[in-house]
Amino acid sequence: MTASETVLEAFDAVDLIRTKRDRGELSTDEIKWLVDAYTREYVGNEQMAALAMAILLNGMTRREIRDLTLAMIASGETMDFSTLGKTTVDKHSTGGVGDKITLPLMPLVASFGVAVPQLSGRGLGHTGGTLDKLESIPGWRADLSNDEMFSILRDVGGVICAAGAGLAPADKRLYALRDITGTVEAIPLIASSIMSKKIAEGTSALVLDVKFGSGAFMQDYAKAEELARTMVSLGQDAGVRTSALLTNMSVPLGLAIGNANEVRESVEVLAGGGPADIVELTGALAREMLTLAGQPDADVEEALRDGRAMDTWRRSIAAQGGDPDAALPVARETHTVTAPADGVLVRQDALPFGIAAWRLGAGRARAQDPVLHASGVDLHAKPGDVVRAGQPLFTLSADDAGKFTRALEAVEGAWELAAPGTPFEPEPLVRARIE
Amino acid sequence: MTASETVLEAFDAVDLIRTKRDRGELSTDEIKWLVDAYTREYVGNEQMAALAMAILLNGMTRREIRDLTLAMIASGETMDFSTLGKTTVDKHSTGGVGDKITLPLMPLVASFGVAVPQLSGRGLGHTGGTLDKLESIPGWRADLSNDEMFSILRDVGGVICAAGAGLAPADKRLYALRDITGTVEAIPLIASSIMSKKIAEGTSALVLDVKFGSGAFMQDYAKAEELARTMVSLGQDAGVRTSALLTNMSVPLGLAIGNANEVRESVEVLAGGGPADIVELTGALAREMLTLAGQPDADVEEALRDGRAMDTWRRSIAAQGGDPDAALPVARETHTVTAPADGVLVRQDALPFGIAAWRLGAGRARAQDPVLHASGVDLHAKPGDVVRAGQPLFTLSADDAGKFTRALEAVEGAWELAAPGTPFEPEPLVRARIE
Repeated sequence: MTASETVLEAFDAVDLIRTKRDRGELSTDEIKWLVDAYTREYVGNEQMAALAMAILLNGMTRREIRDLTLAMIASGETMDFSTLGKTTVDKHSTGGVGDKITLPLMPLVASFGVAVPQLSGRGLGHTGGTLDKLESIPGWRADLSNDEMFSILRDVGGVICAAGAGLAPADKRLYALRDITGTVEAIPLIASSIMSKKIAEGTSALVLDVKFGSGAFMQDYAKAEELARTMVSLGQDAGVRTSALLTNMSVPLGLAIGNANEVRESVEVLAGGGPADIVELTGALAREMLTLAGQPDADVEEALRDGRAMDTWRRSIAAQGGDPDAALPVARETHTVTAPADGVLVRQDALPFGIAAWRLGAGRARAQDPVLHASGVDLHAKPGDVVRAGQPLFTLSADDAGKFTRALEAVEGAWELAAPGTPFEPEPLVRARIE
Repeated sequence: MTASETVLEAFDAVDLIRTKRDRGELSTDEIKWLVDAYTREYVGNEQMAALAMAILLNGMTRREIRDLTLAMIASGETMDFSTLGKTTVDKHSTGGVGDKITLPLMPLVASFGVAVPQLSGRGLGHTGGTLDKLESIPGWRADLSNDEMFSILRDVGGVICAAGAGLAPADKRLYALRDITGTVEAIPLIASSIMSKKIAEGTSALVLDVKFGSGAFMQDYAKAEELARTMVSLGQDAGVRTSALLTNMSVPLGLAIGNANEVRESVEVLAGGGPADIVELTGALAREMLTLAGQPDADVEEALRDGRAMDTWRRSIAAQGGDPDAALPVARETHTVTAPADGVLVRQDALPFGIAAWRLGAGRARAQDPVLHASGVDLHAKPGDVVRAGQPLFTLSADDAGKFTRALEAVEGAWELAAPGTPFEPEPLVRARIE
């Protein structure tokens, strides 16, 4: 029995559904009751599904979204990092294709002496999960006790681990329901889902990487911006210093889409190299996090060049049982697609390439499925690159060559080669900052 | 395995939900699949609840509603009365307070030699059910085999019985779901629910009594009219001669609200007496049914006066095991409310009086609850009546006097006495006819 438990008979779920259906506003007490009664399974999934659809179509006020977020926090445990004696700062990305930014970002920011507790998730569908990627490293463990997490944060400065089941349990039940009822895209539900976990986690600052474009959750820029503004105000209302970058997710991030290959690419960035877009976004988010942590003048490029970030990475991997020098898994079979003619690569759509990697085994269709760490897609050219006939464009990797057919179907029409000399104007990677 | 079974993997429920959520149109094949997959429990209640809310808020085209109705019919058995060698005509009311019209109407219409198969339901919430009312008669049985039903239709001409579980099973599952998810009021779902059962029943003609006003399902006249038009076109598309009357349900119908008392009032009408509104509506619906059955000049008043309708009633009750002369149950306790002053009764709201009767035990809160046949409300005055101080206005009946308090709470403010001489203009009972 927690302090937040309400009287189950206090309200009727049907009345609340009707209110939202008829464009009314739910009271603070109604929302508290709803989340508690849903967590305790008094309100059924079919009732919550109808309500979620009404929320998706009719919206919620800022006050309702704040109440919903607070009620989801109250449905479970909260954490407190104040005993660490360090500023804590976290990053959350709404997810995309080839988005391995957390891997170089955590050690980079932690190398400046701030604590970076990255409670992360696993992938579902075409977007990968940070924990899945790191599990490519032999021995590395995502599940840590609270004591382990605190001691790594103290000694190394950064930790990437699984969120405990005790944080916002109402959100866990609701998230699984939204996935099968076509209600994932409701901004009030996305915002409260993300922010309830981040606020319950107890971080003092938070940077949101809100993506738009074909490979993002919110493809439309205006909706992504609305989501970012909603989340930033939820964080600030809860006393968490919060800002957001709106970043382009029309093209895969970096050259690697998968798990082991994304770890390899992250290590290249930590070694001072790596693809330009990954370096740019890692730097932008690191500066944003360090600014919120009181270090606006931190030289993040220098920390990548001089090996400080790499050092923190190696200590973090080792602290979680992994061997930073171990060989990463490699797939048995590969299939490379080459350029049919000379030209300029003018289009490379994130979503189909994400689906191809998923079909090769890099992602899961159901939460209980395993991930094949060696599977994935490696890009050899990016939009704007000039290529010659026969030059490799991308390589598919899998242990089973039978998987290439459906992966190739996914990327059919997903890239475009224009005549040599066709001008190409890249879109900016970071489009706006919200605070 | 029925002819209508589809391939369960043919579509994804989430895609269909998203289509309707985004104001798209579902194809005929998608709707067929949906209803079949829902009947076979491959599509879950949470998915159907989200879709029902999207349908309520975003609507369906006429073509979608027709496809939905046909798919619900195909989910189960259909009946065929053609071997009877008589025209069959049925009536359906969307339900109201004191609506016992089926009881005098069935024998009245059957007395003209047409077959009247009234497959009816039980009450839920504040609207009563025809079968519950008739079960006040000692020995009367609602559950008949198909053979019994056919032989009564042949010998007596009319039958009122429970619809078999085999008719439109998809609708049964969906109706129970709508009740707990705030999606009862969706016009496409109401229309397809009613019409799928009536078309599956195999009647050749159908008259719809679509109610509006405070005691109706669709309180708003415009929505009730839209529902009537939708149902009439569904019936005509399926080859059933269909028309609708739009009737006022702001005031309780007749003087009795309950079960046994409604049977008593029906018998008064069959004896040539009874309240004016019940006589008027019974006559209007009977003329409508007989017109569709090819007897536009039938003299229904004469059939009430000369005892033909009463004779059919008595034979029908006896054929279903009931004793038409048996005493009906009477409640142990009564409580009468009297006029506090001289005046004119200018208002008597249907919904609160229906709720009062329900709270006294005349209706059920859950499908498995029993009904108390002797409980209910008897009105002694109707709007427009001039009353004297101390004159009885209405009487509550129950076996347990403890129930009067909450029943009286329900009708508080539900009636209004104006100063003597206040003019009163009654609203017409039948507002429109749709065909």
